[in-house]
Amino acid sequence: MNDEKNERVAFQGEPGAFSEEAALALLGEEIRLVPCATFATAFRAVSAGDADYVLAPVENSLVGAVQWSLDLLAESELGICAEMILPIVHNLIGVPGARIEQIRSVQSHPVALAQCERFFHANPGIKRVAAEDTAGSVREILGAGDPGRAAIAGRRAAEIYGGEILRERLEDNPANFTRFLLLAAEARASRSGTKLSLGFQLPHLPGALYTALEPFARRKINLLRIESRPMQGRPWEYRFYVDLQASMSDAGVMEALAEFGQHAVQLKILGCYDSVEMTGTKTKTGAARA
Amino acid sequence: MNDEKNERVAFQGEPGAFSEEAALALLGEEIRLVPCATFATAFRAVSAGDADYVLAPVENSLVGAVQWSLDLLAESELGICAEMILPIVHNLIGVPGARIEQIRSVQSHPVALAQCERFFHANPGIKRVAAEDTAGSVREILGAGDPGRAAIAGRRAAEIYGGEILRERLEDNPANFTRFLLLAAEARASRSGTKLSLGFQLPHLPGALYTALEPFARRKINLLRIESRPMQGRPWEYRFYVDLQASMSDAGVMEALAEFGQHAVQLKILGCYDSVEMTGTKTKTGAARA
Repeated sequence: MNDEKNERVAFQGEPGAFSEEAALALLGEEIRLVPCATFATAFRAVSAGDADYVLAPVENSLVGAVQWSLDLLAESELGICAEMILPIVHNLIGVPGARIEQIRSVQSHPVALAQCERFFHANPGIKRVAAEDTAGSVREILGAGDPGRAAIAGRRAAEIYGGEILRERLEDNPANFTRFLLLAAEARASRSGTKLSLGFQLPHLPGALYTALEPFARRKINLLRIESRPMQGRPWEYRFYVDLQASMSDAGVMEALAEFGQHAVQLKILGCYDSVEMTGTKTKTGAARA
Repeated sequence: MNDEKNERVAFQGEPGAFSEEAALALLGEEIRLVPCATFATAFRAVSAGDADYVLAPVENSLVGAVQWSLDLLAESELGICAEMILPIVHNLIGVPGARIEQIRSVQSHPVALAQCERFFHANPGIKRVAAEDTAGSVREILGAGDPGRAAIAGRRAAEIYGGEILRERLEDNPANFTRFLLLAAEARASRSGTKLSLGFQLPHLPGALYTALEPFARRKINLLRIESRPMQGRPWEYRFYVDLQASMSDAGVMEALAEFGQHAVQLKILGCYDSVEMTGTKTKTGAARA
């Protein structure tokens, strides 16, 4: 994908967001970034022709599924081109020259605040302020110019808005990774990757999930993840999402898919793609859990 | 449970929250309500002996799993005594005498705001303000006494704080229900209900989920729900939660559980209980989807 220049990538958040960092790491510095206020507008940017791709977070290793992006993926006609796993490093960012002792309030996205509990326990005098966005919080506190206010965000947000990193690695748990999916119009999805994602429904019968999984289990195809999402207007009925360690270039996988399609309803192949993992400066390609 | 008087029920939120409404509907008006600032403090209230029960939301029919309460349930030693399904009706609540035309901002929990999209689309001049809590938002706007501010919350919050319901049923989708669980120290959990909830892990082998589900599928025991939650510090490994339509007083179910225990790791029986569904004024008992 890197050989096509100036591709437009939509993401939810402001410049400096972790999604932007993931887009640049995956596609290179030449892309045109399209920041969007909501996930829905990022998806609509592609349908409207204002962007070529959406980069959307789908799961965090501590918090779990990003529920809205699964719903939007199910409703959209976009397919998965690639997966990017980004380490999430939180920094305490203040106005230049500020000292930690001066900080009275720290602003960020509620998930980022929750991932830095230890810092707030150690500093009970600091007020936490929930905001829409990590990078947007940095922009706001820099705009206010108050050394008593700080934000929690990625390094890139500090660089973009001219903030000073007062403390690095504020997060409680260093095993903090977010999985992002690069999505594009369905036709672009490759069939040769190492991961395969499916969305489907099941009939309301005892053993329906068990029966549906059989074609994959019999061929020892590894199920990496299963997620269920409620169906709007049909309480306690679900749409399922599974990630398999499988390639559509494999004839056995295609046979399993055909059998699976006899049990699953409204089956949608979301994509067959490779996973790219950022580990500090190193990038490695392969299935997330090979 | 109703014959024990003055039981203390902890919940997350302020007086007037939907959790409080669910607790009163399930256990009657005689209970002592213990409002807590966070889910974690509500769970700790029981361990500390300050409450007999926690009433925690676990799933909404439009939004999906309440992720934090599943995590807290897994970590705690509490078991499930009962399930309560409450219809969620959102109201626009203002100061007495206010008119809708005067409203400039509407404050509520982000999920409540998201469930009333149609109202905000129809009234683009009204600003949405995210807050910690539905009922707490009513308390705040009544305290401010400004007819330009309103909140979205349940009817009970309007009654408690003396707010006026300016419009009823603000929600986009009327099929809006929340499942609450009543939790208590493990020993109190009954074994005679119609629903059975399990938490477990699986070995990292192809077909592990398929193999584990077999004892239930073979006996035609209905799987009502499956949910996965990330394991802290072990990226892309999961703990599973399943709800089965099954009673531990049934010998076949006990056999299936014993077989299941040979495949599942860290198996925890979260409870065997009945489900109570509120439908307006009518309450019916039984499995959620019989």
